[in-house]
Amino acid sequence: MTDVSHPNVNTLWAETLVAELAAGGVDAVCVSPGSRSTPLTVAFAEHPDVTVYSHLDERSSAFFALGRAKRTGEPTPLVCTSGTAAANFHPAVIEAAQSGVPMLLLTADRPPELIDSGANQTVDQEKLYGDAVRWYRDMPEPAARPRTVRMLRTTMARALTEATGSDPGPVHLNCRFQKPLEPTPAPEDGPDGVPDDWADGDRLAAEGRDGPFVRTSQGTSEPPSGDVARIARAVESADRGLVVAGPADDGLGAEALTSLANATGFPVLADPLSDLRYGPHVDRIDPPVCGGYDAYLGSGATESWVDPEIVLRVGASPTSKPLRHYLRDADCRQILVDPSGRWSEAEFTATDHLVADEDAVARAVAERVTESGARAWRDRFETAERVHWDAVSDAVTDRYWEGGVLADVTAHAPNPTTVFVSNSMPVRDLDRFGEPRAADLTVLGNRGASGIDGITSTALGAGSATPDPLVLVTGDLAYYHDMNGLLALSRCGVDATIVLLNNDGGGIFHALPIEDHDTFEEQFKTPHGLDFGPTGDLYGLAYRRVDGRGSFVDAFTESVESDGTQVVEVCFDAEASHAVRDDLTARVRDAIASR
Amino acid sequence: MTDVSHPNVNTLWAETLVAELAAGGVDAVCVSPGSRSTPLTVAFAEHPDVTVYSHLDERSSAFFALGRAKRTGEPTPLVCTSGTAAANFHPAVIEAAQSGVPMLLLTADRPPELIDSGANQTVDQEKLYGDAVRWYRDMPEPAARPRTVRMLRTTMARALTEATGSDPGPVHLNCRFQKPLEPTPAPEDGPDGVPDDWADGDRLAAEGRDGPFVRTSQGTSEPPSGDVARIARAVESADRGLVVAGPADDGLGAEALTSLANATGFPVLADPLSDLRYGPHVDRIDPPVCGGYDAYLGSGATESWVDPEIVLRVGASPTSKPLRHYLRDADCRQILVDPSGRWSEAEFTATDHLVADEDAVARAVAERVTESGARAWRDRFETAERVHWDAVSDAVTDRYWEGGVLADVTAHAPNPTTVFVSNSMPVRDLDRFGEPRAADLTVLGNRGASGIDGITSTALGAGSATPDPLVLVTGDLAYYHDMNGLLALSRCGVDATIVLLNNDGGGIFHALPIEDHDTFEEQFKTPHGLDFGPTGDLYGLAYRRVDGRGSFVDAFTESVESDGTQVVEVCFDAEASHAVRDDLTARVRDAIASR
Repeated sequence: MTDVSHPNVNTLWAETLVAELAAGGVDAVCVSPGSRSTPLTVAFAEHPDVTVYSHLDERSSAFFALGRAKRTGEPTPLVCTSGTAAANFHPAVIEAAQSGVPMLLLTADRPPELIDSGANQTVDQEKLYGDAVRWYRDMPEPAARPRTVRMLRTTMARALTEATGSDPGPVHLNCRFQKPLEPTPAPEDGPDGVPDDWADGDRLAAEGRDGPFVRTSQGTSEPPSGDVARIARAVESADRGLVVAGPADDGLGAEALTSLANATGFPVLADPLSDLRYGPHVDRIDPPVCGGYDAYLGSGATESWVDPEIVLRVGASPTSKPLRHYLRDADCRQILVDPSGRWSEAEFTATDHLVADEDAVARAVAERVTESGARAWRDRFETAERVHWDAVSDAVTDRYWEGGVLADVTAHAPNPTTVFVSNSMPVRDLDRFGEPRAADLTVLGNRGASGIDGITSTALGAGSATPDPLVLVTGDLAYYHDMNGLLALSRCGVDATIVLLNNDGGGIFHALPIEDHDTFEEQFKTPHGLDFGPTGDLYGLAYRRVDGRGSFVDAFTESVESDGTQVVEVCFDAEASHAVRDDLTARVRDAIASR
Repeated sequence: MTDVSHPNVNTLWAETLVAELAAGGVDAVCVSPGSRSTPLTVAFAEHPDVTVYSHLDERSSAFFALGRAKRTGEPTPLVCTSGTAAANFHPAVIEAAQSGVPMLLLTADRPPELIDSGANQTVDQEKLYGDAVRWYRDMPEPAARPRTVRMLRTTMARALTEATGSDPGPVHLNCRFQKPLEPTPAPEDGPDGVPDDWADGDRLAAEGRDGPFVRTSQGTSEPPSGDVARIARAVESADRGLVVAGPADDGLGAEALTSLANATGFPVLADPLSDLRYGPHVDRIDPPVCGGYDAYLGSGATESWVDPEIVLRVGASPTSKPLRHYLRDADCRQILVDPSGRWSEAEFTATDHLVADEDAVARAVAERVTESGARAWRDRFETAERVHWDAVSDAVTDRYWEGGVLADVTAHAPNPTTVFVSNSMPVRDLDRFGEPRAADLTVLGNRGASGIDGITSTALGAGSATPDPLVLVTGDLAYYHDMNGLLALSRCGVDATIVLLNNDGGGIFHALPIEDHDTFEEQFKTPHGLDFGPTGDLYGLAYRRVDGRGSFVDAFTESVESDGTQVVEVCFDAEASHAVRDDLTARVRDAIASR
């Protein structure tokens, strides 16, 4: 340590950068150790209002930050050193871009004169994430010039705004530093350290004004009143309508959509990642809140139903393929409300695309609607749901399968709980077997790009941001893929209940035609035969293997009520689970068709 | 399975793609399971001459392929599904780009109509790796049109050429597929399957000619004779010259450089990653082959030496910082021979940059040189080397430190052995303490971008390509970072001796000024306290912890002579190891200065 408070320009630059972020609301950062990033690391570590989460694997670090942002709506900045470290962020950057989650990447880099010179650990980090970021800046080298300092302060405000605006997502600032990187005196920066009025006494550059240097705010996009009136008329003239809520990482306004559903009388098809399937509002919505559509929409059950006349859609493309196909095949008006303007609508069926805030649209339409849809239409969904949930309830007591675990997790999770579900089968099973419930379950997943590469870290990041119990439901491939993420349990002080559905390989491939091909076992199913028990000793968690429903529910309940982390592993045969899904679906569809 | 041999266009397209690669010399592929990549996976799996290495983590897969290519000089193609899977390749792509190693990325993608539509697992994969690839093509959709088929065949030949040319590196082909992805009949492709003469009878499109469709070859870049003469004259007129061989993943021509050294009489400063420090040629080079320069070049020892007059340089920027600084401070002519034309020369000291084959230059200069440099100059290096290696030899019996392990590994490795060293301290310790030896040690590292993110996988990939015993020397952070890579031991059938130098965190930071700062322990050293013993059970390897030199050498020797994989862990205190390095260096420099 040195006696001067600002030993060099790097130190002061990084302190200013961090101070502006903190003033803008940043209260945590994910840092991976490295040398080139030293100014940033030290400045974050020394800021009294910032919690530092230290991660040794940058891939896990970025997913952890993603998970925090999914839970909070605010970015947790990421710091890494130069070189391939930054490329390890890439998978999470893509997920953030696709699911619209704020992220702020601060990659340390070598000074410009070393780029493409063969210098050690020096790679081309410019626009490293291509079009996956909302905003990119190659930051200037730290300098004690008033305009440059104002640029630094303003850029931090802008970075937070770009990451959290109407189309939230990742922002990348590539931060170049010369040596010395440590807070040691640099004679060339000033023989006695850099003076306090380092910005040459420029009032604006030297200090912020009552909080962040630039106080930023962003308006809410209200729908044009003509469009609201048009939609309201269309809703009023329709006997048969639906509200379809797809995945939404920034949360859909449950209250406003409750008003909309009650005003229109339209059933709500609530994706498990939509914020609509779980929550106190479920009891306050009068039309059915549907969660079984993934089982009963489609051939054998609903094909004789007449099409809806209007569908009001919020959130991204639904997880459920039967629902997507139902919407694709429905001859009706489909109004997509999409504040991000990202046109997330893969079947290309929307007739109206309204770039406006979902809450504002829902409230405005609800206020104008006085007549609601036909009772018979609502009853169809109400009956279908009842048939479905009765069948699921019978099935879990009868024979256990992967989907039964998801039914039990969502039924038995304490109120409140944060639940994170892996891609591949768990999110699909949740979609089909997780019954809507008036409990405050925050259900999250990585559904932007649907990878299984950072599931554990994303879940633990979400858990780090809430006092709720955290439940992660994952599969064996996802558990393996992000095993490094388990280190955050001890290093970042997160507790979790990890439900591990182990079917020794890619169970989802059993549902695809490749199952009948002779490369199936070796190249698709890819059984690994791993016994994950030793991860208990490796990462200091309680590892428990259970068998059957009774012991699962007991272990699960015990775990969510305890401190520390427990892995509850349940082993399944993937084919047998698929057989139960198929059988259950067939029975539900038959029962619905026969009514 | 279906009865028609070519059930759809995807199948036939992928078969053709793979057949051309195999005809071009590809004999292995790294595949990660996924659905969109099904046509490629099936085609590779069914090709009789291609070994499929199946990896569950794409990051590890890419490093494994990198390691194979480092060992063989030929690319091992990579296959992954769409989405973030492809982004997990990015760290290894950057390493391949920086170190000039062939790589061929075949990323499966959705058809064009789904891009940016919100469709599941659909991300922007176009130019995903930016400028890090030598060549990129967004492949057309499979089609049975003669010109498109000729394009496919030609593109495979071109991809291999681009990856292995004078500037080898990664090539990315983004491969789009419509459903059906499996080898099932697609009525729209032809009701009875796709006919054998699917390319509409076009002779050129339908079949190759006696091997690959396009037989490719590339000339060797011979130096202009005027330059050779000029260099030879400069060499002959110099009393003091050096040959400096930096890291070279494609291998430098040891024979030609031996002739050059013997003709010029110049000492050879051989980076451990240069192919020059180890090999039978070491006994045939008359001037000293130096490996201790990292200890003795610089203040306290060689500053009173008069500068060299000429330095002949091959390979990338040397690993040794003292050597780089010595070259920077030397007032002399420096001739960089660099067939890739990548200007890997971070101190900007080269006076001549010759884009030509190193072998050709070395041979041509050696043939013209008749007088060699001064004996006194050579003797200086000979003496310095003797002083250094004597000191190292005394030290290892005296007190053990991390560098002593590297000294023992290179001294006791069987002949031949493939040795992979991690970045951070192991490669630096090898540089300083690994004595030149006339044994066929192939020493490899990831020195392009110097990351620690894929060390294990790169080593195992290299091991998969050779019958040599494989030795990996790694640190605890690198071992943790790529723990997933250990799965390749069983899945890919590789045996290794893994020497794990465990100092519980980032030992290298003790060598930096940040050591004195109070954020050091938590943010830089980052002790993790992990007991890696359970990785033995997890990955089916023998895990053994040894203490002190005797037990290390015994365990190491036993392991390299046994089947299966053994981790030999040696725990060190990082500070104590730095103290030994510093003390040893001081003693060596004193001894040299006092002569």
